[in-house]
Amino acid sequence: MLLYDIERSGNCYKVRLFLSLLGIDYDRHPVNMRTGEDQSAAFLSLNPRGLVPVLVDGEQVIIDSNAVLVYLARRYGGEAWLPLEPVAMSDIVRWLILEQSEGRYGLARARAMALRNPGFLPSTGTLEESRTFGRMALEELQRQLECTPWLVGVRPTIADVACYPYAAMGPQGGIDLDPYPAVGAWIARMEALPGYVDLPAIPAPEPS
Amino acid sequence: MLLYDIERSGNCYKVRLFLSLLGIDYDRHPVNMRTGEDQSAAFLSLNPRGLVPVLVDGEQVIIDSNAVLVYLARRYGGEAWLPLEPVAMSDIVRWLILEQSEGRYGLARARAMALRNPGFLPSTGTLEESRTFGRMALEELQRQLECTPWLVGVRPTIADVACYPYAAMGPQGGIDLDPYPAVGAWIARMEALPGYVDLPAIPAPEPS
Repeated sequence: MLLYDIERSGNCYKVRLFLSLLGIDYDRHPVNMRTGEDQSAAFLSLNPRGLVPVLVDGEQVIIDSNAVLVYLARRYGGEAWLPLEPVAMSDIVRWLILEQSEGRYGLARARAMALRNPGFLPSTGTLEESRTFGRMALEELQRQLECTPWLVGVRPTIADVACYPYAAMGPQGGIDLDPYPAVGAWIARMEALPGYVDLPAIPAPEPS
Repeated sequence: MLLYDIERSGNCYKVRLFLSLLGIDYDRHPVNMRTGEDQSAAFLSLNPRGLVPVLVDGEQVIIDSNAVLVYLARRYGGEAWLPLEPVAMSDIVRWLILEQSEGRYGLARARAMALRNPGFLPSTGTLEESRTFGRMALEELQRQLECTPWLVGVRPTIADVACYPYAAMGPQGGIDLDPYPAVGAWIARMEALPGYVDLPAIPAPEPS
């Protein structure tokens, strides 16, 4: 199994974390955005959108971080990480979407703007607007995690794996987590899971 | 089964369409945003976010349109609309996310701005920026639909049900579909499905 990724990307980290939680060995191919590798013909043949992560598993090419989690959970995780029961599965997909909606345009965008990461999605919003939107994601997480230890039920699922990285890296985007104590406790539970791997180190900002 | 919805909402229409495709009878409760019903205690007890659609099926309360599709497909659709095979399921979730990402912030937001719909999500972008982002969703659809008749494989799935409404209503937001002929042909296939129900009528604009 080969993962095309970028070290500091939260979406790539999400896949590395899940592969480790599943105990799956894999190889990494770091994509060099400085040389434009993400827009090279070879990489675009894997993902025409030019985005990481891309997972190659034998003949299969899987793109988009949360879709990669679904693939891995279904293929290698039994029902542990992605239950098939209708309400649970619906809930999990709801979190996967929220993570790529309020999470992506809030938490992830605030971090990208604060760290001056290149290559982020088109946007005209300000950093403060991203933070406000990101706090909407944290409020949803807090509301759920006041009721249950994990986002869907009594066990961790890919909903937790998907939502953890950009929530935990909120402070890198200037978003204080103190107002969300249930989120803080959940972050600690995530970090105690067997197979947990550390978040990306905070990179030096890109030159502006 | 009871659906809390708003007639002109594409996300609510999405659920009505799928219920009809599945041949499921249900009751509708139109939520009156003018009187603030969406922020009433009764409605917030169903969905703390105050958003439609909400589906009540016996004891279950399911929120968020694409999560409702997952629930209905799993509970009532066998594997026809949501295959469990890992690659197919991963692909379907990828489209559900794209629809609530580029689709929501592009196609749906452009329509909401053009029609002056109230209650849309926080945003600072312009109408033209929404259109540009919406066209990214259409380009993704076009790329796939040049290769396959439906978004995932040779049968319609909830990926198609999710992506169809705001794509087909693109012109309501001033987004021309002519540059996307494969999308146009797919829209025609959707509209020929047994059980298809018409898109919401174009409402009169809200007073500005």
